[in-house]
Amino acid sequence: MLDFIYNTPTKVFFGKDTHKQVGKIIADYGYKKIMMQYGKGSIKKSGLYDEIMQSLNEYKITVVEKGGVEPNPKLSFVRDAVKIAKEEEIELILAVGGGSTLDSCKATALGAKYDGDVWDFNIGKAVAKDALPVACILTHSAAGSEMSNSAVLTNSEINMKKGISTEFNRCKFAIMNPELTYTVSKYQTACGIVDMMTHTMERYFTACPETDITDRIAEGLLKSIMENAKIVMENPTDYNARANLMWASSLAHNGLTGCGRENFLAVHQLEHAVSGIYDQVAHGAGLAVIYPEWGKYVCKYAPARFAQFARRVMDVVESDDLTAGLLGMQELREFFNSIGMPKTLAEFGIEKDNSDKLALSCTLNKSRTIKNYIPLGYQECKEIFEMCY
Amino acid sequence: MLDFIYNTPTKVFFGKDTHKQVGKIIADYGYKKIMMQYGKGSIKKSGLYDEIMQSLNEYKITVVEKGGVEPNPKLSFVRDAVKIAKEEEIELILAVGGGSTLDSCKATALGAKYDGDVWDFNIGKAVAKDALPVACILTHSAAGSEMSNSAVLTNSEINMKKGISTEFNRCKFAIMNPELTYTVSKYQTACGIVDMMTHTMERYFTACPETDITDRIAEGLLKSIMENAKIVMENPTDYNARANLMWASSLAHNGLTGCGRENFLAVHQLEHAVSGIYDQVAHGAGLAVIYPEWGKYVCKYAPARFAQFARRVMDVVESDDLTAGLLGMQELREFFNSIGMPKTLAEFGIEKDNSDKLALSCTLNKSRTIKNYIPLGYQECKEIFEMCY
Repeated sequence: MLDFIYNTPTKVFFGKDTHKQVGKIIADYGYKKIMMQYGKGSIKKSGLYDEIMQSLNEYKITVVEKGGVEPNPKLSFVRDAVKIAKEEEIELILAVGGGSTLDSCKATALGAKYDGDVWDFNIGKAVAKDALPVACILTHSAAGSEMSNSAVLTNSEINMKKGISTEFNRCKFAIMNPELTYTVSKYQTACGIVDMMTHTMERYFTACPETDITDRIAEGLLKSIMENAKIVMENPTDYNARANLMWASSLAHNGLTGCGRENFLAVHQLEHAVSGIYDQVAHGAGLAVIYPEWGKYVCKYAPARFAQFARRVMDVVESDDLTAGLLGMQELREFFNSIGMPKTLAEFGIEKDNSDKLALSCTLNKSRTIKNYIPLGYQECKEIFEMCY
Repeated sequence: MLDFIYNTPTKVFFGKDTHKQVGKIIADYGYKKIMMQYGKGSIKKSGLYDEIMQSLNEYKITVVEKGGVEPNPKLSFVRDAVKIAKEEEIELILAVGGGSTLDSCKATALGAKYDGDVWDFNIGKAVAKDALPVACILTHSAAGSEMSNSAVLTNSEINMKKGISTEFNRCKFAIMNPELTYTVSKYQTACGIVDMMTHTMERYFTACPETDITDRIAEGLLKSIMENAKIVMENPTDYNARANLMWASSLAHNGLTGCGRENFLAVHQLEHAVSGIYDQVAHGAGLAVIYPEWGKYVCKYAPARFAQFARRVMDVVESDDLTAGLLGMQELREFFNSIGMPKTLAEFGIEKDNSDKLALSCTLNKSRTIKNYIPLGYQECKEIFEMCY
């Protein structure tokens, strides 16, 4: 087991109607003036906005609103939010939404306590030394940003998407009411399911032996996610299934599933090349196509590990490790397909002869390799992409 | 799934030699003067004391020492420590030890920020509103106090042991080096293993359906604890096995295994009656005797739950739920026995005709029942104790 630091300071308020407590919770922390960010206004149509405002008004919290966060949160939006946060002397940034809104708020919180340009953090020009506190009311189970230390921002001027990980990115508190996810579409729900499974598997499929407890937790999460996914696909308003998925999304990415292990994030890097070039690819859907093929490609370099996954998570009965491992990846492929995820890049309209372009992109024109069971250079990446058809 | 609040603010520094970082960690938090509590001096014999002091001195941390914490920490000791903490204007209380030292420090931290007598908190005369920060260097995997919100104190004047749960009891940070547990005896190691398993099972065996994710995590923890227990019994200096157990002890009691579930703690109450009257009974050993018998007694009121445990944790293959459930408890009994735990109360020298006395004690002379699948009153408790022979 590798040494690790575990830090999950986010206080979670989980359950029905918890979003109606937001005013009291914020008042209990002693904050009086907040900035509230949200997306394109679906929270106004659903009535969520009114319920939140009623609670905030009841506790006399002054709210500066900044709606309009886009799915891949933009630097320009954040720069504007930072300016307002400074001028208005905001004390807390509240996200109402999913991963994008959260990441926008995290970036705003960092920028509000920094004299330079907030993009400096993303490009490594500055190291975060302070930030405003961030909190959220979560409306989508997927990214795990509500308890994670990371945030991703897109600089449209130079077409660059860059993440920043810092302990300042941990939310002060997170309000999670599974009922708020009832209206998430089947497709987006499925994308979220793939995302949380992948957050777990990217830590699981690394080269650290003898982290039995972390393995068992990861395996339990994956089994639970798959079981509850099936229920939610049939009945989107099943409270317990939505609740299990919401809590899983947080635990998958708050550090718990990585304790004592490495974190490769190789498939995320492969997928970023795809969705970075092809706008039509949702992150989760891209991961669903690539993950099992990546697994089949590298399985022979860690057959025991893939076999453990196959047997414990996918209930594969097969004594040969390599065969079991490959069967496990096939089962994973079939599960993703069963919740409506695509099987191939062709389904996004991406032609096979683009594998070269994708491999160049994720190796930055052959200038780097991706850390994995074997280093994934241009040739390896190209071969994996070619398998995704 | 029930609503819940999840709050685990303790920052964990886990791994080899982490205790040597204690000076830097405390300095990074900005504390300059601390009180350090420890037990009867084994840390001096082992050399741990010197290594800690060297690190604290290096970072110019002023240390007020208070050694001599007893296994069931005493109110009189804590009162004295509180007095010193106030006089010396201590900024942080550092525990070096296991659950008892931690609980002593937690009580001291509460008392140091309170004008009245610290026992007021335990008897409900006062509610904690502030406390000094507490931290620890853990030397035993068992009680889970390093991340829990609870602490137990014994008032010898009136022979009363009382716990207090408050979020102020959460450690600021916990330093966990599994190597520090190498010297824990086989018997104490086994008692710790029973304790952490019981913390998990007391949350698992409750009446909340459809908390699949919490179930899976609990089941994974239990399987992992049992596997690593076997390794440690053979080889007490197996780092990975000690590490898995140490991390399990924290996760078993920090709230994770109870998310969305009730917490009965029924068997703890039965056991407290035993170790409260009979000094020779170690808490873990008492739990090991009672838990499987309690399970066999109540199994018929929740056969599906006991069957799930039997099949998923104990690998029992049996289609009838009640039969499976009972087999699961039998397997649990055999596991406890395999790590050297007693099977009967008779092994402690407690005669069977004391079941009446024990049942009276844990029902406070028939004035209360213990919440469980069925209320456990005097008669039920007596029958369970009679099974423990």
